[in-house]
Amino acid sequence: MANPTAAICVIGDEILSGRTKDKNIGWIAEQLNGLGIQLTQARVIADVKETIIRHITELSDENDYVFTSGGIGPTHDDITTESVAAAFNVTVERNQEAMRRLEQHYKGTEIVLNEVRKKMADIPVGATLIDNPVSAAPGFQLENVYVMAGVPSIMQSMFESLSASLKGGIIPTRLTVQCATGEGNVAHILEQISNQYETVSVGSYPWFKPGQFGTAVVLTGLDESLVSNAAKELCQLVKHAGFEAEDAV
Amino acid sequence: MANPTAAICVIGDEILSGRTKDKNIGWIAEQLNGLGIQLTQARVIADVKETIIRHITELSDENDYVFTSGGIGPTHDDITTESVAAAFNVTVERNQEAMRRLEQHYKGTEIVLNEVRKKMADIPVGATLIDNPVSAAPGFQLENVYVMAGVPSIMQSMFESLSASLKGGIIPTRLTVQCATGEGNVAHILEQISNQYETVSVGSYPWFKPGQFGTAVVLTGLDESLVSNAAKELCQLVKHAGFEAEDAV
Repeated sequence: MANPTAAICVIGDEILSGRTKDKNIGWIAEQLNGLGIQLTQARVIADVKETIIRHITELSDENDYVFTSGGIGPTHDDITTESVAAAFNVTVERNQEAMRRLEQHYKGTEIVLNEVRKKMADIPVGATLIDNPVSAAPGFQLENVYVMAGVPSIMQSMFESLSASLKGGIIPTRLTVQCATGEGNVAHILEQISNQYETVSVGSYPWFKPGQFGTAVVLTGLDESLVSNAAKELCQLVKHAGFEAEDAV
Repeated sequence: MANPTAAICVIGDEILSGRTKDKNIGWIAEQLNGLGIQLTQARVIADVKETIIRHITELSDENDYVFTSGGIGPTHDDITTESVAAAFNVTVERNQEAMRRLEQHYKGTEIVLNEVRKKMADIPVGATLIDNPVSAAPGFQLENVYVMAGVPSIMQSMFESLSASLKGGIIPTRLTVQCATGEGNVAHILEQISNQYETVSVGSYPWFKPGQFGTAVVLTGLDESLVSNAAKELCQLVKHAGFEAEDAV
């Protein structure tokens, strides 16, 4: 059986303008890989309601899971919650449990839980809250969409709160064979291995440093023994062709 | 008149697996911003021919420019060239000028320009070459799609080769007003300014460091004087509300 699939949707004008560099796609990608969930695509989109609705609908239809980051704060440009609710034709209402958490969080501080901050307790009807150990204001899960904050530390704490509830798959085996030559000299071997082991993905990543160059060949698949055999055979073929190759690690 | 629009499409399984962290979206986003070209979205997609065709077609239809990175090397998993050609129903052929550049590049080195490396001179019919000052093998422009390498240093040198040919727009004016308070205390002011200056985008970015917190309010728009007026008015309103605010920079 194939692994469950997922998509990431980063929502925020500040990423598209280049002002802020996204760190969430790479981090979530690694987590999903470790859970045996296949990331099929990632998107960065603008803070525009119709845009969010369109992309969330598309990604939700095509994947088992969708993870969003950004746009759930208290200000006028935080429109992810209302947009995701609209994508599933549900309304947003003040969530009592979310309110309790905000009250608890701000109690004894100088920060007033005013009407604007209470907006962070507005959650789509039927959604499940996602814990926010960093700053209390929760994310939420609606259908197969998990809505998280954009600030990396908060997003990460939310993902860790929810990840145990995800149904993972087989964790891919990934082996790297280092070849001490350019990829143009081993490409025919890579193609042969790729054809021979249909379920093993063979990636080729050339690298350069002063006075040296080589190719990292990354073999990935769900069947550990097949990946291991493919790596061994690749290594032997590269050596037979007259180039150095390091056993898979 | 609105600025030209663009999309970025990063092609590569190694980004989706989390093994490699993308650095191209943020870099290209900054360049486009500096050229007055509006980045509408960015996608990371898999090395699968049908997937590439589908996304390139969609992004090309919806934007003035599309920039891709990844998948134009010599190995079997480098399928961007044939996929982009297929998206526009053209064939791929060995390009004589690209061959000349590869021959020139490898002349006098120990590297043999074998059949596999010659694949990097296969270019869609009707495409224009994009110079590669780093490693010779060119990218190409087909219709409104610019196909570049995935390695950041090579991609950047390619983008710099082509950027003078892009038709830019008005470079957005971006001013930041630093408010020494949480965004929950100034959100109503931000909303007022956002409603009052319809063509100015008002972004709110809270920040925290030990013992301090605040909100960076970023005002962006194509009309410099409107952005400047909005920033001044915002600053005054925040001060009137009893919080410190630093003049726009």
